[in-house]
Amino acid sequence: MSYVLHYALDNASLIVRLVLEELHLPYETALVDRRVSAQHRPAYQKLNPAGRIPALETPDGPMFETAAICLWLADRHRDRMLLSPAPDHPGRGRFLSWLFFLSNTVHAEMRALFYPDKYAGSDPRAQDALSKQLHRNLQAHFDVLNTAWRTVEGDLTFCDMYLAVLLRWPAIYPASADTSWYDLKRWSALHALARRIEARDTVARAMMAEGLGPTPFSAPHPPTPPEGSAL
Amino acid sequence: MSYVLHYALDNASLIVRLVLEELHLPYETALVDRRVSAQHRPAYQKLNPAGRIPALETPDGPMFETAAICLWLADRHRDRMLLSPAPDHPGRGRFLSWLFFLSNTVHAEMRALFYPDKYAGSDPRAQDALSKQLHRNLQAHFDVLNTAWRTVEGDLTFCDMYLAVLLRWPAIYPASADTSWYDLKRWSALHALARRIEARDTVARAMMAEGLGPTPFSAPHPPTPPEGSAL
Repeated sequence: MSYVLHYALDNASLIVRLVLEELHLPYETALVDRRVSAQHRPAYQKLNPAGRIPALETPDGPMFETAAICLWLADRHRDRMLLSPAPDHPGRGRFLSWLFFLSNTVHAEMRALFYPDKYAGSDPRAQDALSKQLHRNLQAHFDVLNTAWRTVEGDLTFCDMYLAVLLRWPAIYPASADTSWYDLKRWSALHALARRIEARDTVARAMMAEGLGPTPFSAPHPPTPPEGSAL
Repeated sequence: MSYVLHYALDNASLIVRLVLEELHLPYETALVDRRVSAQHRPAYQKLNPAGRIPALETPDGPMFETAAICLWLADRHRDRMLLSPAPDHPGRGRFLSWLFFLSNTVHAEMRALFYPDKYAGSDPRAQDALSKQLHRNLQAHFDVLNTAWRTVEGDLTFCDMYLAVLLRWPAIYPASADTSWYDLKRWSALHALARRIEARDTVARAMMAEGLGPTPFSAPHPPTPPEGSAL
């Protein structure tokens, strides 16, 4: 069985797609139609009981959670390309530390910024207070990441690809909001990372599938997808 | 060098302490004095640039992020006790999926509930809207976890210990708030898990160090610590 990636356009599933492409793994895609909340239907919840996108069908059963899937793929397919330090490598601890920080802090707070009703309820004043605080938090996180990534040397890991996608979204989402709080050029190491990742051939293939254009991380625009649209 | 756990009382560091005890690893503790915001001082930020507790000093350098530290310890010390499925084990994918869900959703939303000013700013109305929405979210997450944990068989992993601690906090924090939205008995599989974990000898040692009493997960009360207090 090949892998099946359950995805939505320009969603967290994009991060998994980048890793699948980078590892040159065969995979099929299955669009989760968010317009009809397909992620909350019983068939999808067998893949991910938490009802979020992405999910990945594997020979060992379904997986969910972006970072979990990427870590599993990188560890399982070390023979194809090293996208994570091995469990006994001295860099493993540092790598896992940043991976979880990206997942439970940067990514999690971005989700709250993009879907404020899911965290602050329906009151516009509460949503606005949440968004303003999250802008401050995320700026501080990018300061921390910019310093940490300045001293990164050596091979690419999937954390770099994960972070590149997290540098894309705040420039264009939420679609109706003022995004002027975010200017990637303020963080030179992160800007350089975005340029480095989007120059890769494997990334270009994923960008083509989701219509993200040639500068999806350093100068992003909303997607114009050939493959299917279900934002 | 033995491990050094930088901790605060009844903090996320408790989860790492449980894993260190379960693996029977030698470790020292260093109290991070939150009363003077020691976690934001340069000396601590060399351990964790994000300025949060815990951090763990290891022979491979400092680590941060609770789940990262636990995963690293479990994978590194498989010879002592199996607290995680091995990278090539068929259960690894499912295990990682739930680990990241606990870290980036359940734990992250609890942090927002306990420190609402860090997410909703200083407006009491916004903080209240945030808290109410988080109560609803967390109840839904516990529903999902209760169903998933009902079918869990086999050996304990550190995810079980992580979840047990996440079942403790909402019953007693924030200290000044109404916690009646949370009643562990509503979730029978989770209640059984709490009882199972707190019955372990290794857990009792950690509970003693932080003054958490004999039923820290199924019927918790605020800590009365012998070792040091810096909440």
